[in-house]
Amino acid sequence: MPHMAVQSTDRRRLKGMRTRQSILAHAARVGSAEGLEAVSLQRLAGDLGISKSGLFAHFGSKEELHMATIDAAAQIFTDEVIRPALQTPRGLGRVWALCNSWLSYLERGVFPGGCFFWAVAEEFDSRKPGPVRDSVLAKKDYWSYSLQRAVREAQAAGEIDPAVDAEQLAWELDSLLGGANSGFKGGEGMRALERGRRAIRDRLTRAATLTAQPLSP
Amino acid sequence: MPHMAVQSTDRRRLKGMRTRQSILAHAARVGSAEGLEAVSLQRLAGDLGISKSGLFAHFGSKEELHMATIDAAAQIFTDEVIRPALQTPRGLGRVWALCNSWLSYLERGVFPGGCFFWAVAEEFDSRKPGPVRDSVLAKKDYWSYSLQRAVREAQAAGEIDPAVDAEQLAWELDSLLGGANSGFKGGEGMRALERGRRAIRDRLTRAATLTAQPLSP
Repeated sequence: MPHMAVQSTDRRRLKGMRTRQSILAHAARVGSAEGLEAVSLQRLAGDLGISKSGLFAHFGSKEELHMATIDAAAQIFTDEVIRPALQTPRGLGRVWALCNSWLSYLERGVFPGGCFFWAVAEEFDSRKPGPVRDSVLAKKDYWSYSLQRAVREAQAAGEIDPAVDAEQLAWELDSLLGGANSGFKGGEGMRALERGRRAIRDRLTRAATLTAQPLSP
Repeated sequence: MPHMAVQSTDRRRLKGMRTRQSILAHAARVGSAEGLEAVSLQRLAGDLGISKSGLFAHFGSKEELHMATIDAAAQIFTDEVIRPALQTPRGLGRVWALCNSWLSYLERGVFPGGCFFWAVAEEFDSRKPGPVRDSVLAKKDYWSYSLQRAVREAQAAGEIDPAVDAEQLAWELDSLLGGANSGFKGGEGMRALERGRRAIRDRLTRAATLTAQPLSP
C-alpha cells in the first residue's frame, strides 16, 4: 500500500512542521520580551516540556535556532501586519492601512514585548556583523521598503504629492511607529498608540494631494 | 596636624569618587552597546584590571551597580545634551537646540551603542516593574518633559503656535530622535541623522508662528 505510506509520511511531516512552528512562535514571543539571548534550547525545552534532545533534532545550534526564530517572527509579521493592509487598494489609503495594521499588531499583543523587530534590532545592532544581526536588520529594512513602495504607489495614483521624498516620508512614519512601540511598552500604554496614530494621520494628510480621499478615522 | 589629615582624607575621597565615576562611565558604555545585563562586577573587574573585591567596596550588588550606572549615564546625558542646549534662549531656537544636541550626542559617539536610554529601556521595558526598570523609564520621561517644557516656553515666547498640543509635539520630536538612533546604529549611519534633522526641522517649522526666527541650519 504505497499510497498510504506516503500519506502517513506526509502526516508526520506536517505534524513535525506544526511542532516546529509552535516552538518558534513561542521562541519569538520570548525573544520580543526578553531578548533573543534568552532563547536557548534549554529554555525552550523547559518552557514547552519537551526534551532538549528533541529540540536538537529541529535546531542544531543556538544560532540556527535564532535564525529560525527571526524567520518565524517575520512570517507572523507578514500575516498580521502586511497581508491585511494589502487588501486596501494602492494609494494613500494603503499607506494609512499599513500604519494602522502595525499599531493594531501592538495593540493586539501579537508579541508580548511589542514589536519583535524593534526589540531584537536594539539588542543586536551594536554588535559586529553576523548572520543574526544581518537577518534582523534585513527584516526591518523589508518593512521600510514596504512603506516606501506604498508611498510611491500612492504618488503614482495621484494621492500623494509627487514632490514628496518617498524615502523620507516612509522613514518618518516608521520612526513614529517606533515611538508608539516604545511608549506603549514604557508606561504610556494606549496613549502612545493614539499619539502615534494622530502624528501619522497629520503627516499623511500633509503629504496628500487635494484629490485624495480623506483618511478614515 | 588635624588640618593635613583632613586634606588627605578629602584627597582620598576625591580619588575614590573619580575611580567610581570612571568605573561607571565604562559601565554605561558597555550597557549602551551590550545591554545592562552584560554589566557585572566580574565583567568590569576584567575590563578595568581591578579586583572584584575592590569593586564590591563601591557597589554591593549587581542591582546597586545597575542603579549607579543609570545615574551616571543620566549625568553624562545632562552634561552632553541638556546643559549645552540650555545656553540657547527660551523659544523655538531652544527646542531646535535640544534636538540638535541629542543628534550630536549620537554623532559624537558619547555611548558606543547610541543612546544609552533607548537601549536600556528596550532591554527592560517588557519586564516586571522593579527599581532598574523604573529608574531608566523615569530618566527617559525626564527627557520628554525637558522637550515639553521647551515647547511650552516657546509658546509663551510667541514662537510656537499656542494651539499646538505641546505634549504631542514633544512626543513626535522624541520619536523622530528615536528613529535617528535606530537607523544610525542599524546601518544607515549618518543618513539617519540627516533624515532625523530634516524631519524635526519640518515639524518645528510647521509649528512655528510667523513671527519666529527661521531655524538655523
